[in-house]
Amino acid sequence: MISIDEMKQLLAQSDPASVIAFVESFQPFDLANCVEKLDPAEQLQLLGLLPPDISAEIVEYLEPVLQYRILNQLEEKQTSLVLNEMSSDVVADMMLAIHRNQAEKLLALLPEDYRRKLQTLMTFPEHTAGSLATIDYIAARSMWTIERTLQHIRKIGHEAEITSYVYVTGNKGELVGVVSLKNIILAEPKTLLSDIVSGDVISVPASMEQEEAAELLSRYDLVALPVIDAKNRLIGVITVDDLIDVIHEEATEDIQKLGGSQPLTGTYFKSSVFHFYRKRIIWLLILFVAETYTGTVLRHYEDTLSEVIALSFFIPLLIGTGGNTGTQTVSTLVRALAVGEVQFRDIFRVIRKEVTTGLMTGATISLIAYIRALILGVESNIGLVVGVTALAIVIWASFVAAVLPLILHKLKADPAVISGPFITTLVDGTGLIIYFTIAKILLGL
Amino acid sequence: MISIDEMKQLLAQSDPASVIAFVESFQPFDLANCVEKLDPAEQLQLLGLLPPDISAEIVEYLEPVLQYRILNQLEEKQTSLVLNEMSSDVVADMMLAIHRNQAEKLLALLPEDYRRKLQTLMTFPEHTAGSLATIDYIAARSMWTIERTLQHIRKIGHEAEITSYVYVTGNKGELVGVVSLKNIILAEPKTLLSDIVSGDVISVPASMEQEEAAELLSRYDLVALPVIDAKNRLIGVITVDDLIDVIHEEATEDIQKLGGSQPLTGTYFKSSVFHFYRKRIIWLLILFVAETYTGTVLRHYEDTLSEVIALSFFIPLLIGTGGNTGTQTVSTLVRALAVGEVQFRDIFRVIRKEVTTGLMTGATISLIAYIRALILGVESNIGLVVGVTALAIVIWASFVAAVLPLILHKLKADPAVISGPFITTLVDGTGLIIYFTIAKILLGL
Repeated sequence: MISIDEMKQLLAQSDPASVIAFVESFQPFDLANCVEKLDPAEQLQLLGLLPPDISAEIVEYLEPVLQYRILNQLEEKQTSLVLNEMSSDVVADMMLAIHRNQAEKLLALLPEDYRRKLQTLMTFPEHTAGSLATIDYIAARSMWTIERTLQHIRKIGHEAEITSYVYVTGNKGELVGVVSLKNIILAEPKTLLSDIVSGDVISVPASMEQEEAAELLSRYDLVALPVIDAKNRLIGVITVDDLIDVIHEEATEDIQKLGGSQPLTGTYFKSSVFHFYRKRIIWLLILFVAETYTGTVLRHYEDTLSEVIALSFFIPLLIGTGGNTGTQTVSTLVRALAVGEVQFRDIFRVIRKEVTTGLMTGATISLIAYIRALILGVESNIGLVVGVTALAIVIWASFVAAVLPLILHKLKADPAVISGPFITTLVDGTGLIIYFTIAKILLGL
Repeated sequence: MISIDEMKQLLAQSDPASVIAFVESFQPFDLANCVEKLDPAEQLQLLGLLPPDISAEIVEYLEPVLQYRILNQLEEKQTSLVLNEMSSDVVADMMLAIHRNQAEKLLALLPEDYRRKLQTLMTFPEHTAGSLATIDYIAARSMWTIERTLQHIRKIGHEAEITSYVYVTGNKGELVGVVSLKNIILAEPKTLLSDIVSGDVISVPASMEQEEAAELLSRYDLVALPVIDAKNRLIGVITVDDLIDVIHEEATEDIQKLGGSQPLTGTYFKSSVFHFYRKRIIWLLILFVAETYTGTVLRHYEDTLSEVIALSFFIPLLIGTGGNTGTQTVSTLVRALAVGEVQFRDIFRVIRKEVTTGLMTGATISLIAYIRALILGVESNIGLVVGVTALAIVIWASFVAAVLPLILHKLKADPAVISGPFITTLVDGTGLIIYFTIAKILLGL
């Protein structure tokens, strides 16, 4: 960790050389964390005196609003240099987060060509492949020789963010393929790029959902993903670190959905209590209303309950076990669907697997339930009812939790619907019916 | 998708050229899926006639046992070529998955130097950084000139898997830093590597947990992670695709744990029903036994229940809502802890946030609960009991679900303990006590 106090002291001494020397031993990510904790004046002082490429790397990790505040208050020359060094996808995100007029002012500091490309990036909706693309890649024409390509790399290479590959385009800017820097080094100077280009490059349309792009990247073990427009023209390239962020975000969303709430849009502390409320109350209310069905069921069996009050002792236990079984099954399956291990066409294999497992866990639980009922001192025939119900509810929960995620996946419905609390609620009402039906039969009520 | 039938037909025609032409338009991952569906004889025919580098790329995606079967049955010359082209981390995994004698036989086909390095890789336990490392990287000495480094790259570069960076080592093999291929191209031929090496490279010890390595990679936006031994000597390099697999695995494990089961060790269909049973029954039983406590509570309030049987109608509704609230909170927090958004020292901020949210959702639910009770036709004072209990249980569940994950995280206990079903079970028993206490007070029983 970087000592904030040491940083503050060095800044107070106003000795640029020692500040730069201090900064050089740390990573941009950690420096950004440190910058967040400095006073606004110190932030400007630090980012104003560092070389623009280092300032740019640090600023990239800050929140858009802070990025803008700093860039807006630095001297114009430094602002322009830092802005030029920043990743174009980060700059586009910042521009979209600030007011249009503020963005215009900053954009005016950039060369026209770069500005135009940035403005294209800014047109892609959030969560699409296009919104993640950077334009700081190296492109070359397929008719160029290796020699000419190397000259080009030497000329523009120091500004590129994507440094392992050269993207090869045809006459109309269409993506022809990709050549690794390694293969450029291995090739003879007179070779044409078209001779060594690897043509089966995987590219994605700008409109593709970012999670789909992330899935392609993981499946094919790629380190960068070129983004094309409808005419196959290269628009930009997505780097692996942006897709790793997407993978993390998707997992966080899946976990929050499985927990029975709509996903938060920000991180934990950056989301307000009201945001928490809004994301949670909807499902809580839906499930609450659905759960009131249990009241109707119990009221229906009021006479049975009054007759054998001991039956009520086991209600939470039995429906709780059903809910637990359902939650286990649903979380395993929803994840397996998300990573593509299971498809709808596997539905019968899934049912067989889950119900067989339910039969085994149910039988185990059933035995313990029977013993527990006897220990609690209820009559042995009530113990029998509890044991048989435990088995039936576990199997029922396994079946429901196996089938519903697959069907909703097939219907392309929001997977958020199938959460642990959802299955628990569903099993609660139906489980009570199973319980009282078995009780009436076995106790002859 | 690749047509299996077309592949089978082409193989039946025994025309190597047309098979190779057909294969070239597909990705290794998809070809591997196709190979899995061929007959054993066709598998051998296909992988025997393809160029060794393409066969190697395909074989890398197969399961270790199938990898071995194929490598063992190909002609020895082809086996040796394919084995040499395969990623060293994949080869090490395969060697560890097969019998020692089988591994010895295959290892004998490799050059001695490579074999020794592979044997080192094979010593690292599963789930450590060392077990993910590949030795197919390019290393250079810090005293080399750019010219000499380029010669070296031209000599060994075509075998390297890591192609964007050159790892620079000192006299004793210790890791000095890293230079990108781009910077090598940009530098003058006579420059020494020591002059352009970036010294603040992030490396990890071979014994580091793989998830920690994955976290470093995401945090610092890296594309490869060098692995060192206790003496700072470079052992290998982890590529980003292996760490993306780790990120996926960790998320899958977290989801399964939050769902109340121990994580499966394999994918969905590759895990047996008995494996499912073993991973699920432990928590089901623990929770079942814990949940029997609800029976004890209900038995304790048997007189109250007999007196006002209508109270039992709301038991599943009230404890269900508590469980839903707890599950929402716990899933959000466990994920926030996993990705490092929340720490133990934030405990009071977390409690304030969760309890305030609980107050708001609880008040909403409470109102609906009161109305629902009136609609169900119970007396209005029972409606009041239900409304007040709903509020109390939601706040209680928010508090418990906020505190427990943080405490267990602090104690470095297995986070699997805090699952949705766990919180649900905990809230069930305590929720009943809250319910009957409020009922006794408000109804004057």
